Amino acid sequence: MNIAVIGLGLIGGSLIRALAARGHRVLGFDADPAVRATARDAAARMPATGRWQVTATIRDVAADADLVVLAVPLPALHNVLDALVASGFHGLITDVTSVKGQVRDAVATRLTGAANPVAGFVGGHPMAGREASGFASGDAALFTGCAWVLCLDEGVGLDDWLTVAELITELGARVVPATTEEHDRAVAAISHVPHLMASALAANAAEDLLALTLAAGSFRDGTRVAATRPELVAAMCGGNAEAVKLALAHVIQRLDGAMQALEERDPVKAVRAWAAEGHATRGAWPPDPGRPEEVPAHVETLLRLGRAGGWVTTVAPDRRTVTGFLPVSNA
Amino acid sequence: MNIAVIGLGLIGGSLIRALAARGHRVLGFDADPAVRATARDAAARMPATGRWQVTATIRDVAADADLVVLAVPLPALHNVLDALVASGFHGLITDVTSVKGQVRDAVATRLTGAANPVAGFVGGHPMAGREASGFASGDAALFTGCAWVLCLDEGVGLDDWLTVAELITELGARVVPATTEEHDRAVAAISHVPHLMASALAANAAEDLLALTLAAGSFRDGTRVAATRPELVAAMCGGNAEAVKLALAHVIQRLDGAMQALEERDPVKAVRAWAAEGHATRGAWPPDPGRPEEVPAHVETLLRLGRAGGWVTTVAPDRRTVTGFLPVSNA
Repeated sequence: MNIAVIGLGLIGGSLIRALAARGHRVLGFDADPAVRATARDAAARMPATGRWQVTATIRDVAADADLVVLAVPLPALHNVLDALVASGFHGLITDVTSVKGQVRDAVATRLTGAANPVAGFVGGHPMAGREASGFASGDAALFTGCAWVLCLDEGVGLDDWLTVAELITELGARVVPATTEEHDRAVAAISHVPHLMASALAANAAEDLLALTLAAGSFRDGTRVAATRPELVAAMCGGNAEAVKLALAHVIQRLDGAMQALEERDPVKAVRAWAAEGHATRGAWPPDPGRPEEVPAHVETLLRLGRAGGWVTTVAPDRRTVTGFLPVSNA
Repeated sequence: MNIAVIGLGLIGGSLIRALAARGHRVLGFDADPAVRATARDAAARMPATGRWQVTATIRDVAADADLVVLAVPLPALHNVLDALVASGFHGLITDVTSVKGQVRDAVATRLTGAANPVAGFVGGHPMAGREASGFASGDAALFTGCAWVLCLDEGVGLDDWLTVAELITELGARVVPATTEEHDRAVAAISHVPHLMASALAANAAEDLLALTLAAGSFRDGTRVAATRPELVAAMCGGNAEAVKLALAHVIQRLDGAMQALEERDPVKAVRAWAAEGHATRGAWPPDPGRPEEVPAHVETLLRLGRAGGWVTTVAPDRRTVTGFLPVSNA
């Protein structure tokens, strides 16, 4: 397949390496000329069969592509989509952004309808963050075993979804079928709100020099993602505001419950009872993968698999079934 | 010095190894006969100069001790103190518990006054948690570079404090002078509340199987200490309830601030501004140690050093000065 990757940061840079290594014809583009030069130099050092090419414009990168992968941060997305429209691209599009509702809406505004029809859009999100960012930190093995949501909303063609799912599973990722809304609600709870909590914890110690000297393991881990650049946290949370507000309200409610426990006549007993659910949940995580099963490649069946915490590891050649895993709690 | 360590878990087990390696005569006791047997076997495998002994009773362990180190969890403290009173111990006491007010009060009730005078009590707390617990996980190097609070309250003899500080600095720890109240307030912010937040985050995802499958780095780190046994979290937080309530209220207030930012007309801009302080604090942590300086060994000078985020690395032989470090922000 001819694939174009737009944006060559950690995810795009890993993806271009992984796809080229699988034998696809891959072209990459980044708005930053220095990143393009680095990506070109890196390609030149690869064996001939695993090389990618780097183009200087979005028009060139998309010209012969069957699939364009948008791998730019949310704030850059609108400009890239405008350039893609201008290029006259008519193939399939997927992306790797952490908020799916905004991306879906941005694509729908520009790239559907009579004026600029594209073959289809399948929103995606690999759960593959890392401390380091940038092309140089990219790694062809980044996606091995990682959960990668592919959105299967009404209006998404099942065939398009299976095309992207096949590509992604071949990189070793676990493809998770979900609707855009399910995705955005889930990542609010397990990624966006954790970023807000890390920031609140860190800020809470800001004035207390003694506390910062005593801070050790629980502070280090609990605040680690507070080191994420505020503009990225803002783009994630602000771009998913409704779901984040809901998840945040739930967490605040739980913390209010801890406050009430501390007000009890026997706070030790009350806090122990309060802490039990979080302890049990963390102890049972991550779940065991269970056994593989053949699952019909139907929209509702796939979405049920995702809602149950399952994922897809291969798409059958005839596209009638996929191999799915349903996790079993290890509690 | 003759030292008795009561409680041979991770901290006590590490301490007995470290003190014996420094040439002290060390005796250990644990309420669990199996732990005593393990500790005896481990001693037998040490070179003769680094061995410790294990006794079967608190009376025996304290009989010839100049210093008793209480290294039992908070719930076990009262029984141990009762046994220490019954043994007629009259030396110096320190401890390694994560809540200092409760321990100070428990000691004061039993071990001061005409009936059971002890030479003195210096509350202590090494910030040296680990995933693993138990004697077998102990490590003589556990305290190298770790911050170790020694409480310097009114009524604590400076000479007693310097005796314990000398012992602890010789193990490579950074001794932080603080009052009991300062300690309890600081650890509420950087340890106790982080445990509550980790638990709330984990519990918040409990019902959502899709979310648990997508959970990756920020969830893993943000919930790590939710794996701590609920009874330990309860003992820490319930035993330090007033300070924890205050720190928890501040964190909830900050999260309410995030909620307001998400309600703004431009939530991306508002969240970016909200996230700036936590980002800056985490980026500047841990602080650089600065340069060593000779500090007079006076109570107020030492407490000022601790309040400024500083620590002590050596006690001068004449006990008139200590070597102190005052951290400089690396922002």
